Amino acid sequence: MSVRDILEGRLTEKEVELRGWLVTKRSSGGVQFLMIRDGTGRLQCTVHKDEVGEKIFQKTDKLTQESSLTLKGIVKVDKRAPDGYEVKVRDLQVIQLAAQDYPLSKKEHGIDFLMDWRHLWIRSSRQAAILKIRAEVIKACRDFLDEEDFTLTDSPIFTPSIVEGAATLFETPYFGDKAFLTQSGQLYVEATIAAFGKVYCFGPTFRAERSKTPRHLTEFWMVEPEMAFFSFEDNLRLQEEMVSYIVKKTLEKRSKDFEVLKRDIKPLKKVEPPFDRISYTEAIEILQKNGYSIEWGEDLGLPHERTISLKFEKPVFVHRYPARTRAFYMQPDPVDSKVALCADLMAPEGYGEIIGGSERIHDLKLLEQRIEEFGLPRKAYEWYLDLRRYGSVPHSGFGLGIERVVTWICKLKHIRETIPFPRTMTRIYP
Amino acid sequence: MSVRDILEGRLTEKEVELRGWLVTKRSSGGVQFLMIRDGTGRLQCTVHKDEVGEKIFQKTDKLTQESSLTLKGIVKVDKRAPDGYEVKVRDLQVIQLAAQDYPLSKKEHGIDFLMDWRHLWIRSSRQAAILKIRAEVIKACRDFLDEEDFTLTDSPIFTPSIVEGAATLFETPYFGDKAFLTQSGQLYVEATIAAFGKVYCFGPTFRAERSKTPRHLTEFWMVEPEMAFFSFEDNLRLQEEMVSYIVKKTLEKRSKDFEVLKRDIKPLKKVEPPFDRISYTEAIEILQKNGYSIEWGEDLGLPHERTISLKFEKPVFVHRYPARTRAFYMQPDPVDSKVALCADLMAPEGYGEIIGGSERIHDLKLLEQRIEEFGLPRKAYEWYLDLRRYGSVPHSGFGLGIERVVTWICKLKHIRETIPFPRTMTRIYP
Repeated sequence: MSVRDILEGRLTEKEVELRGWLVTKRSSGGVQFLMIRDGTGRLQCTVHKDEVGEKIFQKTDKLTQESSLTLKGIVKVDKRAPDGYEVKVRDLQVIQLAAQDYPLSKKEHGIDFLMDWRHLWIRSSRQAAILKIRAEVIKACRDFLDEEDFTLTDSPIFTPSIVEGAATLFETPYFGDKAFLTQSGQLYVEATIAAFGKVYCFGPTFRAERSKTPRHLTEFWMVEPEMAFFSFEDNLRLQEEMVSYIVKKTLEKRSKDFEVLKRDIKPLKKVEPPFDRISYTEAIEILQKNGYSIEWGEDLGLPHERTISLKFEKPVFVHRYPARTRAFYMQPDPVDSKVALCADLMAPEGYGEIIGGSERIHDLKLLEQRIEEFGLPRKAYEWYLDLRRYGSVPHSGFGLGIERVVTWICKLKHIRETIPFPRTMTRIYP
Repeated sequence: MSVRDILEGRLTEKEVELRGWLVTKRSSGGVQFLMIRDGTGRLQCTVHKDEVGEKIFQKTDKLTQESSLTLKGIVKVDKRAPDGYEVKVRDLQVIQLAAQDYPLSKKEHGIDFLMDWRHLWIRSSRQAAILKIRAEVIKACRDFLDEEDFTLTDSPIFTPSIVEGAATLFETPYFGDKAFLTQSGQLYVEATIAAFGKVYCFGPTFRAERSKTPRHLTEFWMVEPEMAFFSFEDNLRLQEEMVSYIVKKTLEKRSKDFEVLKRDIKPLKKVEPPFDRISYTEAIEILQKNGYSIEWGEDLGLPHERTISLKFEKPVFVHRYPARTRAFYMQPDPVDSKVALCADLMAPEGYGEIIGGSERIHDLKLLEQRIEEFGLPRKAYEWYLDLRRYGSVPHSGFGLGIERVVTWICKLKHIRETIPFPRTMTRIYP
């Protein structure tokens, strides 16, 4: 028996036993109103002095916030109750009387304070709603890919090689040698496409970035699909289908959590294929027209991405970035080799990049040349070059950052609330 | 159009286009027999000289193992073909002619050699079957828990504290401080039960164990469910249901892969609740009767677990180990505080531990005492103690090691084949 069962109307006038935590308590005359949370929802429970007797009523009176308890009672329809139902309590047992000094009792706290108490803060309705949506986003990613006949092939966390740049690597001693923590599983899923065609990895990735922006974590989760025989265009189509599926499923399943967050879901309802596509060159022109002093060849920063994002109602692909500013493995555009067949997907409403993807170089000679041009340690990439020696095929893939998607879908100001225990430059506790 | 579509009989007598890799080739008279792999399966394709002409036939003749190609042809039912179907080729395009020295062309290779070429070895039918079963096991875990109303709450990888013992920790410099790579997400999911009731984390975990056994990896994946209000017995029941579900779903969905592995599935079909339960004390007696010189209080090693495992047809719980040899957070047995309310689940057929679980201590004083007795750094556990200060409830949980389950289900001799890119003491490449 759970709060959700009651709220779904299946237990009206029935006797129930609930186990949970006391969220709030108020008293009016001979009645205590307890808001109880049991992990499936919240429900008002009332304790009437003249029905339960003095002993239970006094016990109730002493209950502190977050105390754990078991209660028995009858489910009643009551229009005055916040959710239309309440439990009229007949008996109540305290499991543990919470210490009086529950730190999150007041409404306003600074973010550092809240993060110090993250292990308790996740109990709050807003944080719990975000984490429920996160779980749904993850499930939607997996369900979509499984339905599309992808095979999950986990990439390793310990790696000998370097994907995104040495400056942002975490490193650990490894039995007399050293290992780097993965920044992306992509190179490894490129290997498994030859066995399974369409594959993905889904795990934590790590970047030791010295940036305190609202969209960086040192530890974040990425899903990285990789598809044999997918062209650059096929890749974009898959991305817009997947992102639309994630949004649709999350809206369907977590509508109550969006209400808790007071998230206006109208913009999310517009998210369906096709998404708009603009080239990096067009993006630079838009930015220049909007007063930015940015030149062709420069990276887009968060303010730039925001500006672009706000011009479109749906997510928008910015494609064909300058090849020399992007990763070594990206296929050059056959029409103009200065740009790469890559695209970043920008979420709307002022959010920026949530996906980075590209067609990968499948020609051995070109890839060897790129590894040299980028000054990468050839030896660490020998196995990756083998993929081009033995049955190379055109292929594409992308990486979707879970926390960035959740930040956008929940319309949050900062990415740190989208993961149970965020890790940033200044925080690994709790 | 895929090989699987053809093998499922949907394309007979139709013209198809396949893209894939050449697994083997043999020639007989004017006919080339190509075994093609496309990621969904393998299929025989025949090239008849008198039908395709000299040019295509010569191109076919030059094809090396693992070359990538596109071919067009007509699907035929043919009882002589290995799978009852074949494609009679009309046209063939080589995408990339693989280098002549494909390293895995011979049948027998040593394990170090195979692991050096792991990025190509995964293409072999046996390795691919194992990885398909792995993916199914993971999906079954998630589906089971989602259906049982669990919420996924990812635990962090970077941690300040120590769960399983300092000797086996990987450590990384962290912006002037240091962080440890998680050995288990359990402590963190204990926090999220107060928000969601039933939760799990599912991610890679790390142990720097200096052991070269057939069941240890330095990086392995664990699913760790944690349930508020679950007793020790509730915990065992959930485990036997979950393991039975995993086996059942995997048998259902991956029967062809079990055939590839030549795995006798009869023992797996017996896996259903309830599982047998014996106490650690009973296990010691069994071992002593079987000639082991083991005393009460000693740890069970792999030979011990094997011996116990072989006495039972189904997985068996060994419960109530000596408390002082187990983790600090385990609830003592109220009947005999020398033992803990914990159990390891031993897989049958000579496999050992696949799950470790326990009821957790929910009493603040007792937990504080244990942290002191175990000599753990109290400060790192303050947040964990808070969970007992503010609304503590009885709770239980367990950790299931994915690679160990796959080793057993596939009946492998060594755990290293159960993960795409295994990491051991001596290997982080490729």
